[in-house]
Amino acid sequence: MYRAPIEEISHTLNHVAGMRAMLDEGLLDDLTPDLVEAILTEAGRFAAEEMAPLARAGDEHGVRLEDGRVTTPPGWPELYRKWCAGGWNALAAPVHLGGQGLPMMLSVAALEMWNSASMAFTIGPTLTIGAIETLERHATDELKRTYIGKLVTGEWIATMNLTEPQAGSDLNALRTRAERAGDGTYRIFGQKIFITYGEHDFTDNIVHLVLARLPDAPAGTKGISLFLVPKFLVNEDGSLGARNDVFCASIEKKLGIHGSPTCTMIYGDGRFGDQPGAIGWLVGEENRGLACMFTMMNNARLCVGVQGVAVAEAAYQKALAYARERRQGRAPGHEGEGMSPILAHPDIKRMLLTMKVMTKAARAVTYSCAHALDMARLSGAADREHWQQRADLLTPVAKAFPTDIGVEVASLGVQVHGGMGYIEETGAAALLRDARIAPIYEGTNGIQAIDLVTRKLPRADGGVVRGYIAELRGQAEAARGANIPDLGETGGHLLAALDDLERATNYLLQLLSEERVEEALCGATPYLRLFGFAAGGTMLARGALSSGDAGEARLCRYFAENHLCETTALRKSVMEGAESLLSASEVLS
Amino acid sequence: MYRAPIEEISHTLNHVAGMRAMLDEGLLDDLTPDLVEAILTEAGRFAAEEMAPLARAGDEHGVRLEDGRVTTPPGWPELYRKWCAGGWNALAAPVHLGGQGLPMMLSVAALEMWNSASMAFTIGPTLTIGAIETLERHATDELKRTYIGKLVTGEWIATMNLTEPQAGSDLNALRTRAERAGDGTYRIFGQKIFITYGEHDFTDNIVHLVLARLPDAPAGTKGISLFLVPKFLVNEDGSLGARNDVFCASIEKKLGIHGSPTCTMIYGDGRFGDQPGAIGWLVGEENRGLACMFTMMNNARLCVGVQGVAVAEAAYQKALAYARERRQGRAPGHEGEGMSPILAHPDIKRMLLTMKVMTKAARAVTYSCAHALDMARLSGAADREHWQQRADLLTPVAKAFPTDIGVEVASLGVQVHGGMGYIEETGAAALLRDARIAPIYEGTNGIQAIDLVTRKLPRADGGVVRGYIAELRGQAEAARGANIPDLGETGGHLLAALDDLERATNYLLQLLSEERVEEALCGATPYLRLFGFAAGGTMLARGALSSGDAGEARLCRYFAENHLCETTALRKSVMEGAESLLSASEVLS
Repeated sequence: MYRAPIEEISHTLNHVAGMRAMLDEGLLDDLTPDLVEAILTEAGRFAAEEMAPLARAGDEHGVRLEDGRVTTPPGWPELYRKWCAGGWNALAAPVHLGGQGLPMMLSVAALEMWNSASMAFTIGPTLTIGAIETLERHATDELKRTYIGKLVTGEWIATMNLTEPQAGSDLNALRTRAERAGDGTYRIFGQKIFITYGEHDFTDNIVHLVLARLPDAPAGTKGISLFLVPKFLVNEDGSLGARNDVFCASIEKKLGIHGSPTCTMIYGDGRFGDQPGAIGWLVGEENRGLACMFTMMNNARLCVGVQGVAVAEAAYQKALAYARERRQGRAPGHEGEGMSPILAHPDIKRMLLTMKVMTKAARAVTYSCAHALDMARLSGAADREHWQQRADLLTPVAKAFPTDIGVEVASLGVQVHGGMGYIEETGAAALLRDARIAPIYEGTNGIQAIDLVTRKLPRADGGVVRGYIAELRGQAEAARGANIPDLGETGGHLLAALDDLERATNYLLQLLSEERVEEALCGATPYLRLFGFAAGGTMLARGALSSGDAGEARLCRYFAENHLCETTALRKSVMEGAESLLSASEVLS
Repeated sequence: MYRAPIEEISHTLNHVAGMRAMLDEGLLDDLTPDLVEAILTEAGRFAAEEMAPLARAGDEHGVRLEDGRVTTPPGWPELYRKWCAGGWNALAAPVHLGGQGLPMMLSVAALEMWNSASMAFTIGPTLTIGAIETLERHATDELKRTYIGKLVTGEWIATMNLTEPQAGSDLNALRTRAERAGDGTYRIFGQKIFITYGEHDFTDNIVHLVLARLPDAPAGTKGISLFLVPKFLVNEDGSLGARNDVFCASIEKKLGIHGSPTCTMIYGDGRFGDQPGAIGWLVGEENRGLACMFTMMNNARLCVGVQGVAVAEAAYQKALAYARERRQGRAPGHEGEGMSPILAHPDIKRMLLTMKVMTKAARAVTYSCAHALDMARLSGAADREHWQQRADLLTPVAKAFPTDIGVEVASLGVQVHGGMGYIEETGAAALLRDARIAPIYEGTNGIQAIDLVTRKLPRADGGVVRGYIAELRGQAEAARGANIPDLGETGGHLLAALDDLERATNYLLQLLSEERVEEALCGATPYLRLFGFAAGGTMLARGALSSGDAGEARLCRYFAENHLCETTALRKSVMEGAESLLSASEVLS
């Protein structure tokens, strides 16, 4: 059963991601280390005691659709109400909106624990966090008054409606249309697919944020507007009015996250209301919808990255528990009668250590991204731009790297269980099934790599990424200079990895400056992984140094000596692989 | 829909794995290139037209158990009868037993296609091949007379009963007991789990090969005997007699291969027959059962390796078809209106090429192992020992490397499909679910790596592995010396990878000679992968050279420049990673 790794999370927050420094500098208002600890402990308790016990039923029952109504797994609506009652939904929302205004770092740490306990449940309320921020920044005062309060308390849940059958990664192809109704509202018509929690029985209203095109909009993404479309219209007094013309036509049968409804939503086919068209309200300006949605998407990307960390942590805990209990064979050095716990076998140790350090590296990356977001909001005016740039740089890495790791670690978790891992009863396979969505949704990991290389690297003429690498180099130098026997040669390995990262970065920047975009794109995915390894490894060393913990140092050294060497292969693939890739790909068509 | 890749398979058989040379030297009796082609085409037709259309229903329906009876998916019993009627079951069996006596290479090629079409179906009859060989070598004439004929025609199916709840990888812990009945037969008592097709409705009798202990047997694996236990006793005239005291108590709910029953078998609880105890006949000598079973297990390991290749091929075909059809975005160089097929995007090209070359490398390794087995049987007496040693060396690699690749490629296949890959309807996820068992059963891939390092490397003082590496080196030199522009610097990359392999090999042999087994075991898994990469890559070059095919050369170069560089990281992990692994692992306990 899942146990909230409070110590591990606190270590990452304080010694890796910089929360301790923020606390010391008084950037976090009234927040104290004790309060942080108390919040984490309570969020972890909720995850382990309330959520985790209901996860299995969610996987087995899944969700049902009947007459447009979705039934979530047994106990889940009550769980959601408990979660709101505990104030968890309001954790990250600003204080002036009724939230607790806690830093993103803390929100991300709590999300990790909830996703470890049940990813299928947690992705439901997660999108609301980004929706609140989007409405706060872009909506009219009237919309804010009507909706934000209830989203903050969790009385209503928000959804994000982008994808259409012909428009997935490419929103240019979006067809859902919006017509001006003449009274300031709009009428929305179209079909959206893959809508997470598009319909459910958690709340009595659902607030859809929907991308659509106005009749006179320019083609492409510059002609997309964002609309708020409630499931039920809201009366002046805040009570629910008529049903709006939107409904869930079908739900998907998925590999995993069975407890979460993935819906096809139909807008404006005339099923409800006096005249066809779902009534919507514009958020932000006409034709500027994508910019508004990006607020929500960037938040969502980091939250998806955290799902990778979360499933990896859950898989590690499960595999470790099994490896301690299950006995087979006699490991080297085994004495006495009977069989060894399989944990004593070197090959099992390798798998578990790999799971452990990969999870730690992934966690370091996501928490650091959250830290940058917090700094962009809370640091002095002079530094905010710097931290926003840092957050922008890290967001694609914080989405893709941990979600790839999530799949790899969950798959290792199955392997540690041997034959039992393949039996659904054990739960190891369910984690692999759940983990597999995270590299896909909220922009595939390929899209993240393209974003990193073509949009984030060129920022400030490469100054943002170079500044970040220089900072990492300083930390690696510190690791090399520190007299910590448990670190071994870790500092040197980190510097070598950062050399790989720097060379690959310069190479890609050079290609981009020569407009050799296709070659740069060939290396995008290995480059992102190289980035994750080099940054994640360096952060582990930073954590070991800052905490002085011998166990952290040993784990970091294991990572450096057994995994970090991969960076050279990745760098070669980035710098030398494009020509053969393009040439060989002709064989495919 | 699956299309049998006859050209690809023929290329691998003839230009990579040495079938052409065997044909030329007349080692394969009446077999001609035309006949090989005809058999492959017909086996492929059966896979694509008869099996593939029923695979989906198998995944969705799964199997049912009621009153000890197992119902397989709709149409599967008929499919099995068609398969037998086509003579496919007899493909590999010796001619004097009523089989077609075809080489293992051809059998493996056919198995690949059938597993691509439906792994859950194909694993049913697969074990019978090894059982025939086991009985032929070790059983009494009476047992042979009674059983082998019907196993060859497929009228009956054989199973392999090793695992018990407490005895998985470690057969020392086996508890199922056998008592001498006094009439030359034995009575078997115990529980076996994870028995593939332990019960089904394909045939009216099932022949269980069961490991058990005699009362006076020594402890450990030297006290294990092998018994033949039929579901129904067989009368003198070959007709079926009384039901034997064995039955299926439950079936597992698994991640994948849903169409295949995975059974818990209960022997001798008195449910059937006059007195308790399933009646069994000894195969081979008392207490020598494990040696007999190894005949079956080695065969099974190669066949499982082929499953990895098969699922990878199916996943590649499905992803390629999707990437050609699905349009999103505009790839570099895209001209005109509309969106590009996603195949035009460099990142998608990378995924598909990776799937393609990994599948090819995995296929090369398994077919080469089959070639070695054929040579051990068919070459001149002076060479047989050499080829048997080669087959023994390659067997763990041929099991583990392709099955790891199978999971990786199937996972990439999901990714290429984007959101659609997560929806079960597409079938991409089902391939990942099916692929995930292959690294686990028939000896986990960790066990294979241990076998390779501790048992296979030391053979002939390291002479077997060194001889093999020298042979690969010759092929890599040939690639470097050849004037094939499409190969680029492939020869040099291969030689570097073989250097990595040789250094890691020498290092491990040195550790073993110093009895530093634990350190050697730490590197076993990365060593096996290094072996697979270096050998697989070299074989791709051999195939490109031998065939003169430009496409093959380009794919090989892509592999060399984008993936082979991983060998250095693996070598470092083997040679420098053990200390930090053992030191960090103390953190786990």
